[in-house]
Amino acid sequence: MIDFQTIVLAAGKGTRMKSNRVKLLHEVAGKPIIWHVMQASLKAGATRVVVVVGHQREEVEAYLAAEFAGRYEIAVQEEQKGTGHAVYSAAEFLKDGPARTLIVSGDVPNMDAETLHSFYLAAQEFPFGVMTAMLEDASTYGRIVRNHANQVTGIVEFKDADPAQRAIREINTGFYVVRTSFLLEELTKLCSSPPDNAQGEYYLTDLVEAAAQLEPPLGWRVPEVSRIHGVNTRCDLALVEKYAQEHLREHWMLNGVTMLDPAAVYLDVDVQLAEDVVLHPGVQLRAGSAVGPGSVIETGCVLHAAQLGKEVHLKPHSVLNESSVGDGAVVGPFAHLRPGSEIGAECKIGNFVETKKVQMGKGAKASHLSYLGDAIIGAGANVGAGTITCNYDGKNKHVTKIGSGAFIGSNSSLVAPVTIGDDAYVGAGSVITKDIESGSLGVARGRQQNIDGWARRRRTSGS
Amino acid sequence: MIDFQTIVLAAGKGTRMKSNRVKLLHEVAGKPIIWHVMQASLKAGATRVVVVVGHQREEVEAYLAAEFAGRYEIAVQEEQKGTGHAVYSAAEFLKDGPARTLIVSGDVPNMDAETLHSFYLAAQEFPFGVMTAMLEDASTYGRIVRNHANQVTGIVEFKDADPAQRAIREINTGFYVVRTSFLLEELTKLCSSPPDNAQGEYYLTDLVEAAAQLEPPLGWRVPEVSRIHGVNTRCDLALVEKYAQEHLREHWMLNGVTMLDPAAVYLDVDVQLAEDVVLHPGVQLRAGSAVGPGSVIETGCVLHAAQLGKEVHLKPHSVLNESSVGDGAVVGPFAHLRPGSEIGAECKIGNFVETKKVQMGKGAKASHLSYLGDAIIGAGANVGAGTITCNYDGKNKHVTKIGSGAFIGSNSSLVAPVTIGDDAYVGAGSVITKDIESGSLGVARGRQQNIDGWARRRRTSGS
Amino acid sequence: MIDFQTIVLAAGKGTRMKSNRVKLLHEVAGKPIIWHVMQASLKAGATRVVVVVGHQREEVEAYLAAEFAGRYEIAVQEEQKGTGHAVYSAAEFLKDGPARTLIVSGDVPNMDAETLHSFYLAAQEFPFGVMTAMLEDASTYGRIVRNHANQVTGIVEFKDADPAQRAIREINTGFYVVRTSFLLEELTKLCSSPPDNAQGEYYLTDLVEAAAQLEPPLGWRVPEVSRIHGVNTRCDLALVEKYAQEHLREHWMLNGVTMLDPAAVYLDVDVQLAEDVVLHPGVQLRAGSAVGPGSVIETGCVLHAAQLGKEVHLKPHSVLNESSVGDGAVVGPFAHLRPGSEIGAECKIGNFVETKKVQMGKGAKASHLSYLGDAIIGAGANVGAGTITCNYDGKNKHVTKIGSGAFIGSNSSLVAPVTIGDDAYVGAGSVITKDIESGSLGVARGRQQNIDGWARRRRTSGS
Repeated sequence: MIDFQTIVLAAGKGTRMKSNRVKLLHEVAGKPIIWHVMQASLKAGATRVVVVVGHQREEVEAYLAAEFAGRYEIAVQEEQKGTGHAVYSAAEFLKDGPARTLIVSGDVPNMDAETLHSFYLAAQEFPFGVMTAMLEDASTYGRIVRNHANQVTGIVEFKDADPAQRAIREINTGFYVVRTSFLLEELTKLCSSPPDNAQGEYYLTDLVEAAAQLEPPLGWRVPEVSRIHGVNTRCDLALVEKYAQEHLREHWMLNGVTMLDPAAVYLDVDVQLAEDVVLHPGVQLRAGSAVGPGSVIETGCVLHAAQLGKEVHLKPHSVLNESSVGDGAVVGPFAHLRPGSEIGAECKIGNFVETKKVQMGKGAKASHLSYLGDAIIGAGANVGAGTITCNYDGKNKHVTKIGSGAFIGSNSSLVAPVTIGDDAYVGAGSVITKDIESGSLGVARGRQQNIDGWARRRRTSGS
Repeated sequence: MIDFQTIVLAAGKGTRMKSNRVKLLHEVAGKPIIWHVMQASLKAGATRVVVVVGHQREEVEAYLAAEFAGRYEIAVQEEQKGTGHAVYSAAEFLKDGPARTLIVSGDVPNMDAETLHSFYLAAQEFPFGVMTAMLEDASTYGRIVRNHANQVTGIVEFKDADPAQRAIREINTGFYVVRTSFLLEELTKLCSSPPDNAQGEYYLTDLVEAAAQLEPPLGWRVPEVSRIHGVNTRCDLALVEKYAQEHLREHWMLNGVTMLDPAAVYLDVDVQLAEDVVLHPGVQLRAGSAVGPGSVIETGCVLHAAQLGKEVHLKPHSVLNESSVGDGAVVGPFAHLRPGSEIGAECKIGNFVETKKVQMGKGAKASHLSYLGDAIIGAGANVGAGTITCNYDGKNKHVTKIGSGAFIGSNSSLVAPVTIGDDAYVGAGSVITKDIESGSLGVARGRQQNIDGWARRRRTSGS
Repeated sequence: MIDFQTIVLAAGKGTRMKSNRVKLLHEVAGKPIIWHVMQASLKAGATRVVVVVGHQREEVEAYLAAEFAGRYEIAVQEEQKGTGHAVYSAAEFLKDGPARTLIVSGDVPNMDAETLHSFYLAAQEFPFGVMTAMLEDASTYGRIVRNHANQVTGIVEFKDADPAQRAIREINTGFYVVRTSFLLEELTKLCSSPPDNAQGEYYLTDLVEAAAQLEPPLGWRVPEVSRIHGVNTRCDLALVEKYAQEHLREHWMLNGVTMLDPAAVYLDVDVQLAEDVVLHPGVQLRAGSAVGPGSVIETGCVLHAAQLGKEVHLKPHSVLNESSVGDGAVVGPFAHLRPGSEIGAECKIGNFVETKKVQMGKGAKASHLSYLGDAIIGAGANVGAGTITCNYDGKNKHVTKIGSGAFIGSNSSLVAPVTIGDDAYVGAGSVITKDIESGSLGVARGRQQNIDGWARRRRTSGS
């Protein structure tokens, strides 16, 4: 039976990020670092999740309250005195908690539930288990020391390590499964006397020695090394983003999505993609976006909370926010769909066209240089180049209605509120301020006057 | 003397692609996978090319008929029972064919004619030659087994391999040169009894043993490992696309093209580039495009069948389709040249300008926010901001003619069919429905009325 | 005391670049290759910098004169006969120069002052010191030969190297510190008899043997291998650009800049970035750009000499040249700020808007499809969709003034010179040719006429 609590270490300062924002709220694949850690902890099956907060705790707590309300508890580490001290800050949860405790670093966003779950299963019978990783470049991670029987005998922080220890390539990932009673007892001992290391901190890793007295600790090697990187600098942030993207891209490619250059496709964690979707280089699909089968998204398109149907074609450099596009529609290049745009099946939205709060019926077209805001456009309507809905009069916004099959001549201004009837026709260059009935023509423009030779005379004059 | 036939294996299902489209018609560098294989086979000097088809054969055959008419023959593999069985499906071509047969995988798009040619020359005196590769990660490829004399003694499929064999890093690329008579004889034997392996298939590699009785088979190591990767998943497709791009980029860089970040430049296989072309990151040059010497293409530009002259400057995010641009012209940013745009030398097409079926004379300018469709524009004409050719009346398309040296005032609508004479002048904001003679002025707009204090009163009123 | 002269070798031909432009003027991180070398030489503390020129010397000298006037001297190598001969061309500077000479390759743009300085300090007591590097793939670099005591005994050009020497991975970077008197004496000897090597050239490396008679030469290993790559082809150019970008990106990330995908961010060497700047993939920041704290720049934005304040938001695909944007302003997507655009704090420049020589007061807005050129726009003004300043009459440019709080209705044309007063109002679709007083309304458009059933009749008629 799986029964454990997770302690999430989220009290660190993140000084090296050089940021006004608390480290754990920096984003990876469109979500704060701590979102990933919470999500993995919860999905791994923890009975209880305790988050240890400290630096900028108000911001971390505010985020957790908004996103994970009722699914976690808070412990406060008043001073930052090391990982042992951090866990000890949650002593009250150790006292009455499940028999096993999973300790996770709050700044390791690529750790997933499957890995945590496997680790727990492997470690649950040990007093102390540590997740380790073999790295090509072990950098400044803590080193795993093993004896000749390959048993873990210690974990040495990089700064305390001697050259022989620094040569070790097996490192401490900062994830532990520990018997809760042992953990409480040993941390109580540890934190009751001054620390004895280069950093002046209480290390959780100091428990290894005591654990070894009972039973050799488990050093469990993580299967995927890309899961374990923590974030201390923006370089680290870029690295974990890269790994997160690689996981997402591979997942979707194996599910039938073509990416011409996967390294140049950017996906948020909750994006949904169907089979035979084609993503060109330079595409960003952000939170809440979903793309239907056979749709093609060309370079430079940025989608945020956009829903595309089947076989939609987004031409280069189209930007969609909180909008939907129906089956077979063609959008772009250089189209901008702002919130509330509902583009019907087989519609065409062409270049330099902006829509906002627009319902567009099946097969309607706005092919060039238009602004359509607060409008309802009927099926098969043709909105000419340069059409502008004058939806704002400086005080209020008003609605424009264009009927099915209507034809709006180029360069027209539709001064809302105004209704163009079904199959009605607006002459090019008109400023339409009054409704036009179905099947009728509306035109509003000056009469043309030609002045013979005017341009020739002007050219030859001085001014 | 070179005399061989090539058998292209193109019958597989491609299930892992998770696609409605047959695997071999997925594209690499702008052409279907099988195009690359056919091209390499034909260029390598094959006397005859036989394509073995099976799954979704109608689609494969339709493509081949359209693209390679008269240059290949078809054999059908009714059931997919392994590579040996596939080649045996072409038995009739083995009976009366040249003395040597080159067998190629249909899903290996980066294999080139030079490599095939070298392989054939090396292998022609052997009963059986296999192209091999040394890989860092041999993955699930078949392994090449050699004896202490370094002679090839067998090829073991990954699934049938024991751990020692799986440790071998020399793999089978799936390309073979075989003595045709031997091939026919042995395949006839092989396919007359049930298969004896984990997959229940007839392997072409089962012939190695029989070949070894005659003479040790040749294991010929491919010089460039990037040539041999096959496509089974979209991850593979991305990998072969990457290698294809690397070959193309290196070719053009060594011929005098600057790429600020080659990894972010995307070239179709038939693109032509001159010396001192500069390509910024994020540029896509697709089929049928050619760029003249000294031209600079900035980020986000996408060209399809576009011809650029000398020292053309494409500013960021310009999209060109089936269009041409003359020497020294400047286009963009955010320009969209649609099919039939012929932009003359030293022209300027500025931001948010769309052209379609337009001839533009030397030095003409359309600098801002215009739609020019079905138009003939004379040399040196100046098309003002916001100009729109109203080329479509809801029923038909009509032509706009703008004379040399004409000046079209901003925000004008030119209602086609209409002709603006040479050196004529259109007043800003006009809707022009009647022709304007050379050197004359046309203006069509309402008279301005000012109402004192209107805005002030409105502001202070309630509505 | 630091006292040395630097000799910059800049006489080579660069044939393999296949370019009309001289090799050393090709750019890396926005500056010519030789700019980087000159900059590093000067910053390293050289008492005198001597540039040896030869091929296309006029172009190199013209560039140096423009950029480094008074900070260098020129020596001319009339014929290209090897590096020894090149340095000997500067013999007059060796005669009366400082006691030590630092020789640097002119085509190694990533060499930095810190590395040169460290090398000089290490080498100053030796008659001859060479900077070496350990490479995974030593390619065609000259090899460093050492004896059993690990002393440098020779440097062998790749073409003259035997297989054992070619297996050496320690290579000659082409940077030397040499005792000036020794250098002059030995080069005089060397160049007075015919060369004895495969290339028929006088190698600087031939001095190693003579130096070894005095004292074992110093082989000083460069700490960062990415510093030493020279440029002979466009492939090399791409490689050094990549390394230059990696140095710049890492520098700014460690200073608090977030890059979602650093590999897709492109920075010129003089760009300035503040803390908490966020750069999306596909952003180019070119010469003279500076970005204030908390600003976010989305994909496809290209900045050249643009100054952004605090918390500016550039939406995708915005292009800025020689412009400034105030705190909290929002620009784009698809905005184009041309030279002289001064966008105030909290302004909004929306999609498909172009500005040129515009001053825009605090909080003013131009949200859609506009061209604003030669304009002064007051605080809080609202410029409607499709507004165009008609600033050019075919002969001259004129200024448009829009007062604070003014409201310009959509699709208006403002024919400059013209002044719209504070809080004035322009009716949609107007062509404004006369000034509008503060608080007043101006409107200029045709009266709307509706023709009942016209469109219905037309639809059913034949034409």
